[in-house]
Amino acid sequence: MRIIVLGGDGYLGWPTAMHLAARGHEVWAIDNYLRRQIALETCSEPLIPTPNLTDRAAIYQTLTDQRIHVTIGDCTDRTVMAQLFAEARPDAVVHYAEQPSAPFSMMGYDAARRTLRNNLEATFNTIWACLEHAPDCHIVKLGTMGEYGTPNIDIEEGWIEIEHKGRKEKFLFPRAAGSLYHTTKVLDTDLLWFYVRIHGLTVTDLMQGPVYGLATPETDLDERLLPNFHYDDIFGTVVNRFLVQAVAGVPLTVYGSGGQTRGYLNLNDTLQCVELAIARPPAAGELRILNQFTETFTVNDLAERVAGAGRAIGLDVPIKPIANPRKEREQHYYQPVHSGLIELGLEPHLMSEEVLVAMLERVRRYADRIDRARILPRVRWN
Amino acid sequence: MRIIVLGGDGYLGWPTAMHLAARGHEVWAIDNYLRRQIALETCSEPLIPTPNLTDRAAIYQTLTDQRIHVTIGDCTDRTVMAQLFAEARPDAVVHYAEQPSAPFSMMGYDAARRTLRNNLEATFNTIWACLEHAPDCHIVKLGTMGEYGTPNIDIEEGWIEIEHKGRKEKFLFPRAAGSLYHTTKVLDTDLLWFYVRIHGLTVTDLMQGPVYGLATPETDLDERLLPNFHYDDIFGTVVNRFLVQAVAGVPLTVYGSGGQTRGYLNLNDTLQCVELAIARPPAAGELRILNQFTETFTVNDLAERVAGAGRAIGLDVPIKPIANPRKEREQHYYQPVHSGLIELGLEPHLMSEEVLVAMLERVRRYADRIDRARILPRVRWN
Repeated sequence: MRIIVLGGDGYLGWPTAMHLAARGHEVWAIDNYLRRQIALETCSEPLIPTPNLTDRAAIYQTLTDQRIHVTIGDCTDRTVMAQLFAEARPDAVVHYAEQPSAPFSMMGYDAARRTLRNNLEATFNTIWACLEHAPDCHIVKLGTMGEYGTPNIDIEEGWIEIEHKGRKEKFLFPRAAGSLYHTTKVLDTDLLWFYVRIHGLTVTDLMQGPVYGLATPETDLDERLLPNFHYDDIFGTVVNRFLVQAVAGVPLTVYGSGGQTRGYLNLNDTLQCVELAIARPPAAGELRILNQFTETFTVNDLAERVAGAGRAIGLDVPIKPIANPRKEREQHYYQPVHSGLIELGLEPHLMSEEVLVAMLERVRRYADRIDRARILPRVRWN
Repeated sequence: MRIIVLGGDGYLGWPTAMHLAARGHEVWAIDNYLRRQIALETCSEPLIPTPNLTDRAAIYQTLTDQRIHVTIGDCTDRTVMAQLFAEARPDAVVHYAEQPSAPFSMMGYDAARRTLRNNLEATFNTIWACLEHAPDCHIVKLGTMGEYGTPNIDIEEGWIEIEHKGRKEKFLFPRAAGSLYHTTKVLDTDLLWFYVRIHGLTVTDLMQGPVYGLATPETDLDERLLPNFHYDDIFGTVVNRFLVQAVAGVPLTVYGSGGQTRGYLNLNDTLQCVELAIARPPAAGELRILNQFTETFTVNDLAERVAGAGRAIGLDVPIKPIANPRKEREQHYYQPVHSGLIELGLEPHLMSEEVLVAMLERVRRYADRIDRARILPRVRWN
């Protein structure tokens, strides 16, 4: 298949581009380095330096003879997208091209507006690039489990049938996200659903939980192919952050009472899920929504697991609850359905001690690059 | 009270500004003439020429000695909004500053993007102007009944309690709008709800049905104070369009089978509703949602009523169903609750034959200005 990866330089975009190329697909990757730029601006560069996207693709091609076509450009620019879609004539487009940091989106007016504009307009342009250049293209959009928030009822996979005063209707599952970043993904879903209803686009919206991990079969070919591994408070996801804290000897920073429960998944499972979504598309003109995670944990669970893995390799890993910089429920009901991807064939890589130990050992090789100043939260919700 | 009207040059904005000034409030009106510009671009100028906002405010002041402060500027420009809010120190802001045409939003990429960007960023800047300059200011936002679409269950006032698998939660009522314009208002509500939850803004989101009418106590002072009365397919609301068609001797253009049901209200009731919302704000930190209409009609009902009023003054008014340019259900369940504004004190002006006859007679004075070319639909949904 011919596949475009929007945001192909990202933590998930780059491993996805390689993974799809390794499976024999023809892959185009586009990125405007927005995340790298914001990381620079906020002193949040990743733990491990990574070559730029053009160079990474060249290294990957040298090692595998598989070509990833690279465009450096902005998905909010219609001309860039038109040229890319006309050239690629894609069967599927994987849309990761969003400002991905919740804390960044809460830093103030400029950061919030940049997040809102980039994310909405990248989605809008993806929709229109399909309408104008590839109407049968399957859009695989990365949403987030954070769109749902933490309601007091079971979270279904995107849709819910409501019975009210003796009548029934099926609706998008109501959403109430906890940051502006997560809210832009709610708006994305609204926008996609509108264009699906009116113009018959074919969309899979993957409601993904926080991802952890840094090794995939493709990144293992060469250290220069590793994804951007962030451990800072802006771009680092919680498990990755805890692993670096464990190596650095910094107490694990549990926000608040630590009862916040979320669904997590291994980076390799993100690749599997995206691949499965592409291989088994929904019916034409359908908006399919899948909840993409494999296990739920509280923040306290995660801290205990990382501490346990640390002890297994001789690290002393204290845990230290700190004031929660976010506005969120710290104790809450959380029962999200996530059977759709399993039914499509997902075989989960669970968070075993072995997996965590392997990550700790890899992080340890870069221990001297850890900057402790970027571990504690620098952004408060209000 | 000190009140800002965003979009103060509009069909509703201008009568609202005068109405609030007449009630003794100190009023600031801002507009960037986006609607006038789009009307020019699409050959959709209003039936009755209107002076610009600065001149209208001067005419109104000459007649009443009441001053309306005018800013010509763009609500998506942070600097403009900061200056306005710093000067006005508003107790309330009425937000009409949106591209208001559903057909325009469906004309293609450029029109859609302009609608999305203008509407979202005007709302975003209103939120931030309040956060930064007037945190206690009550935002009165004009939403639309179109946000809900036409679900198969009763439409509540903004919120619904869902019981699911033995547990309960209260959510925003799920929305599925029928045009990109209406969808931008869904996104507005999502955005407002996010900032209410996190930052404690105080918001009333008025889900308004189509408005008809052109006379209010203030516009009756002088013809130059009339609102922009559109009868074209782009900006004209259905009742106003039918009235002009009746005067012009053009058969009333019912879209499709005409069973589409909506909630309607008189322009004077919009003024009452906005005034009541301001006078009786919700609790601080609350998002109050009210369904703003007084009566529901099918399109066929409206055509019959206009035809009947026409006959009463000697006009022959044929009705001619045409192919529906929109993608919408033409026969559907429609039972929206609308008791909130009545409880606040709304006294409806219903759509009597007398009201329609008075409008027909006023339109008749401008009969020679009617351009039949702009009556039939020029935009199809797909």
